[in-house]
Amino acid sequence: MKLATLRVDGSTRAVRLDGDRLVDLGAADLGELLSHDDWAARAAAVDADAATTYPAEGADFAPVVPRPSKVVCVGLNYKNHIQEMGRDLPEYPTLFAKFADCLIGAGDDIARPEETEEFDWEVELAVVIGKEARRAKGAEAEAAIAGFTVLNDITCRDWQFRTREWLQGKMWDSSTPVGPCLVTPDELPGGVRPELEVVLSVDGEVMQRDNTGDLLFDPVALVEYVSTIVRLNPGDVIATGTPGGVGHARTPKRYLTGGERVVAEIQGIGRLENTVAEDGAA
Amino acid sequence: MKLATLRVDGSTRAVRLDGDRLVDLGAADLGELLSHDDWAARAAAVDADAATTYPAEGADFAPVVPRPSKVVCVGLNYKNHIQEMGRDLPEYPTLFAKFADCLIGAGDDIARPEETEEFDWEVELAVVIGKEARRAKGAEAEAAIAGFTVLNDITCRDWQFRTREWLQGKMWDSSTPVGPCLVTPDELPGGVRPELEVVLSVDGEVMQRDNTGDLLFDPVALVEYVSTIVRLNPGDVIATGTPGGVGHARTPKRYLTGGERVVAEIQGIGRLENTVAEDGAA
Repeated sequence: MKLATLRVDGSTRAVRLDGDRLVDLGAADLGELLSHDDWAARAAAVDADAATTYPAEGADFAPVVPRPSKVVCVGLNYKNHIQEMGRDLPEYPTLFAKFADCLIGAGDDIARPEETEEFDWEVELAVVIGKEARRAKGAEAEAAIAGFTVLNDITCRDWQFRTREWLQGKMWDSSTPVGPCLVTPDELPGGVRPELEVVLSVDGEVMQRDNTGDLLFDPVALVEYVSTIVRLNPGDVIATGTPGGVGHARTPKRYLTGGERVVAEIQGIGRLENTVAEDGAA
Repeated sequence: MKLATLRVDGSTRAVRLDGDRLVDLGAADLGELLSHDDWAARAAAVDADAATTYPAEGADFAPVVPRPSKVVCVGLNYKNHIQEMGRDLPEYPTLFAKFADCLIGAGDDIARPEETEEFDWEVELAVVIGKEARRAKGAEAEAAIAGFTVLNDITCRDWQFRTREWLQGKMWDSSTPVGPCLVTPDELPGGVRPELEVVLSVDGEVMQRDNTGDLLFDPVALVEYVSTIVRLNPGDVIATGTPGGVGHARTPKRYLTGGERVVAEIQGIGRLENTVAEDGAA
């Protein structure tokens, strides 16, 4: 199944993508749907011909889960990106956070703050949690994964490196597109350890291209690791890290400016298409 | 005013502390109360003799705001603690995150995970936001502060230093007491830049003692800085950093073990009294 949160008439609805139609699933958003233990059965059971539907064409997607209780991000997780940054393969995943207020929808403008000169991209495979998990191992960790989506971990590099903690470069308001859909593992090659091409382009120029099979810590390992530390709730998001090709590591360095079009796509999941829009106090 | 979230009959209530009584304010918790623009007037207007009240003695406090949309923490902010860690005074505050699932109430047990050998304390003055703020400066930043509370930023040092990002040492489930009350700035010497003695003891032995007047980045400066990056919502928490005397910086190093009693107190605000309880998969 492909599931999403659709903006409709100033509110949102959880929907299932059926071909060219989005089928209303009777919940306000995907976070609410996932809070039911039987979310998958509920979502599958809705009859597209009896339910309210919306056209998929031109759909206005909200963040796939609009208000996750946590967004945990992984740094340095593609082997080739680790090498491009000049580091050794780490023993443990590096974790940092974002908050719900950072998230935007798959077609929304990315707010480029006037306070940065180094606005960068990072396409990532993101795990969406479907079941509460704490200290989950093996099959339990696999079962906690509702599905996968695309996240663009937009970063202000100058702020990221102001101090030794990255958070202040990573938690800018309305900067992080996530969506358009959650795709359940049964629809993906590799299942809960998907092997999918991931590509990011800026104004049509490909900047990042890799395969999620290159992840050092795979999605199941990350659910195990993060849930050792803190409970994962339905709707929580784990962004699994970005491959090589970020603007900050290019020669010369390359940053995003207003009006540019950033497309982040993962094969079989979907595509984020966002325009960079200047944002400031003025 | 002193405001809190009280556990009553398996649910919670927002309350005002009036001497030896807690006065029910007609909201499920302090987060809900603060979401109203006129929260201060509402809280002040409730007539203690007409409302439901509960005894203050033996009160079971929830985290002062149970589900803040974000908890932003500051590292290295007391001048003497920065010096104890062997660092220069920084130009910018160092920020990291916690999530709502880390928080516990003022008298709850602190879950000491079996996965750590280096479980440490950090008493902190915490700001609670009372008004949405983005790029707030000066008077607007001051007005965004609902009040202050006490937070003990319990940390697994071994996990904090596994990677270059601190988050995984800081976001352990049910580890971070916050409360018992929010005290509004009008009741505190120094107002929105309070000058208060802060003390932490373990089984009666004083480990940290300082004054919140020693903060390098004061609460108003922190609201300005964080709100430059991301909106602050009513109920959000900014933990302002800890003074010298943490266990990890002592000679010999000193860590918390099960059964120990940790008391974190800020003059004029209140006291967290928590017992360390072993927590694990078994």
